[in-house]
Amino acid sequence: MPRRVGIVGSGLIGASIGLALRRAGVEVLLRDTDPEQVKLAEAMGAGTLWQGEHVDHAVIAVPAHAIAPELRAVQRAGLAVTASDVASVKSRPIAEAVVAGADLTTWCPAHPIAGRERGGAASAQADLFAERTWVLCPIPQTDAAAVAATEALARACGALPVRATPDRHDEAMAALSHLPQVVASLLAAAAPRLAPGEVALAGQGFRDTTRLAESDPALWSSILEGNRGPVSAHARRLAAELGALADALDHASEASVTKVVTDLMERGRTGRAQLPSKAGGQAARSWGWVGVVLDDRPGQLAALLTTVSGWGVNLEDVAPFEHSLEAPAGVLELAVAPDEAGPLVDRLNAAGWVAYRRS
Amino acid sequence: MPRRVGIVGSGLIGASIGLALRRAGVEVLLRDTDPEQVKLAEAMGAGTLWQGEHVDHAVIAVPAHAIAPELRAVQRAGLAVTASDVASVKSRPIAEAVVAGADLTTWCPAHPIAGRERGGAASAQADLFAERTWVLCPIPQTDAAAVAATEALARACGALPVRATPDRHDEAMAALSHLPQVVASLLAAAAPRLAPGEVALAGQGFRDTTRLAESDPALWSSILEGNRGPVSAHARRLAAELGALADALDHASEASVTKVVTDLMERGRTGRAQLPSKAGGQAARSWGWVGVVLDDRPGQLAALLTTVSGWGVNLEDVAPFEHSLEAPAGVLELAVAPDEAGPLVDRLNAAGWVAYRRS
Repeated sequence: MPRRVGIVGSGLIGASIGLALRRAGVEVLLRDTDPEQVKLAEAMGAGTLWQGEHVDHAVIAVPAHAIAPELRAVQRAGLAVTASDVASVKSRPIAEAVVAGADLTTWCPAHPIAGRERGGAASAQADLFAERTWVLCPIPQTDAAAVAATEALARACGALPVRATPDRHDEAMAALSHLPQVVASLLAAAAPRLAPGEVALAGQGFRDTTRLAESDPALWSSILEGNRGPVSAHARRLAAELGALADALDHASEASVTKVVTDLMERGRTGRAQLPSKAGGQAARSWGWVGVVLDDRPGQLAALLTTVSGWGVNLEDVAPFEHSLEAPAGVLELAVAPDEAGPLVDRLNAAGWVAYRRS
Repeated sequence: MPRRVGIVGSGLIGASIGLALRRAGVEVLLRDTDPEQVKLAEAMGAGTLWQGEHVDHAVIAVPAHAIAPELRAVQRAGLAVTASDVASVKSRPIAEAVVAGADLTTWCPAHPIAGRERGGAASAQADLFAERTWVLCPIPQTDAAAVAATEALARACGALPVRATPDRHDEAMAALSHLPQVVASLLAAAAPRLAPGEVALAGQGFRDTTRLAESDPALWSSILEGNRGPVSAHARRLAAELGALADALDHASEASVTKVVTDLMERGRTGRAQLPSKAGGQAARSWGWVGVVLDDRPGQLAALLTTVSGWGVNLEDVAPFEHSLEAPAGVLELAVAPDEAGPLVDRLNAAGWVAYRRS
């Protein structure tokens, strides 16, 4: 494991890596074109200013288009034994690194799959990568030392290293991340076209489907520009499917529309079913869920948790408040052993709470 | 408020309305073409079998295409003083009701905006409509009594009644619900086209954006078929925007791509910003968030909550476990007063927990 790591770029990813490595006892040096970000990262304990000291491993945590020059600069100055990056696209930066004359043997292209809508060091979290996938995309020139250092770095951040070729990585990201980002923004952009007040008819589904629309435009311009081919291909395929659906809706018989929609949704369900079920997912399905209505009186949540914990009930998980649009009241859902759910509901209702068994 | 309500259709929505009304002390009678659903709803306490008794108000809780005939049948038998429905589309069922010769004066077309991916009476919740929007779409023929009864019904279920014309409702739903549903399914359908294992590269963004893809194909075939025009128009607009983006990605200069993507995402951010901020959202932003790492040892959550509550810390909200794909460990985030966050982190770490301040 590298004992001293230098991070170029103190934004969300760079600063979060710093926080994670510091917690793992690794010495971290940071730099950024924006001194404010470095100051913030330092204040958060993500590391100290990198003033040209030599490091075991350099993490190039900058937008995709800036990787080649930054990597080349670090290598020219002989600052690091090995290096890796964190960009969401891989083929393009690799091609640019070749053109820039970078040393490909000591660099392992990589991509930790974690992020937040909020960017910048201020949003950094020591646990951002905890048990997330960290994709390593070594190319034939990449030597074993660079791969080993990058894998150790990922593990030190609590992540799970996996391998993929740059092309397959970019192809998968276009389908799993880049196109969903574009679609979330385009769907959200429809809201302003509605009459005032009508946006209030948006349900949870719209909120979930458009959450990514809050992401940083500058960052995503770089990502999409860096993965033009795969994103374009996936965008055209989606456009064609939407066009086919529109044609059916405009011209087809009720039976045909039903067939088209059913087929479309069955394919979607098949795709969802292929997602690795989240850890505890199996267990979650077998738990007994109890919903408790909480109003906005201060201390309600603490009072409930104290009460339930006091009864010695073993809470397996909690689901957050389901706040409404207009009122601060909400429902907290508690997961317990299936046979404990019924008694807990009775006990809570007897104690004056509004509780119910979630089917 | 109707003292006795008859519900036609004992699925998720019908049974949930039954549970909510029963809790409000209203007598509820249910029926369904599937006797299993009625038995289930009865067992859950959503009401008792409707055997043709006269009711104050009838709720036609069936798919859009079945509203006209069911409404007509209830009216022919003179079973209800007034009626309403719950379909996600309004114009088409209204037109069909006219053709079917239904009495339009005693029927208030309506749509409670609430639902779950899981359908059927088994998924019913008494709180499904708590503080959700319940859209009333009266037409000129609708008399005041039908509107009043439907509004009272909505309030009895804890929902917030709002008004919209059938056309505006359908237009808004196409943009806020129907197209997002289609897109979620189409995005999820891309997963099976990836190589085995590559789906594991999916992040939280993909999970959120495709959550709706688990919805019921039969239900959605009826909804989309019932709102052909608006859904088709929105699908074509989205297809055109995707095509324009693909053209830029395939042919435009880096500067042009950046401009296109930035503009697209800024429009998305503008749309997101127009969503009514969830209740407590303001407060949430001003809270101090503390993340605590929990492993899968039984009792961890209860122990943490007991500890924190025992310290007299007033928890404002909790965010659920962030389970990883591979491990049951996760992070529970606690919201407290901003000035309490720092001390809580120190106290938790001192007590042996792994806690951190979420920026």
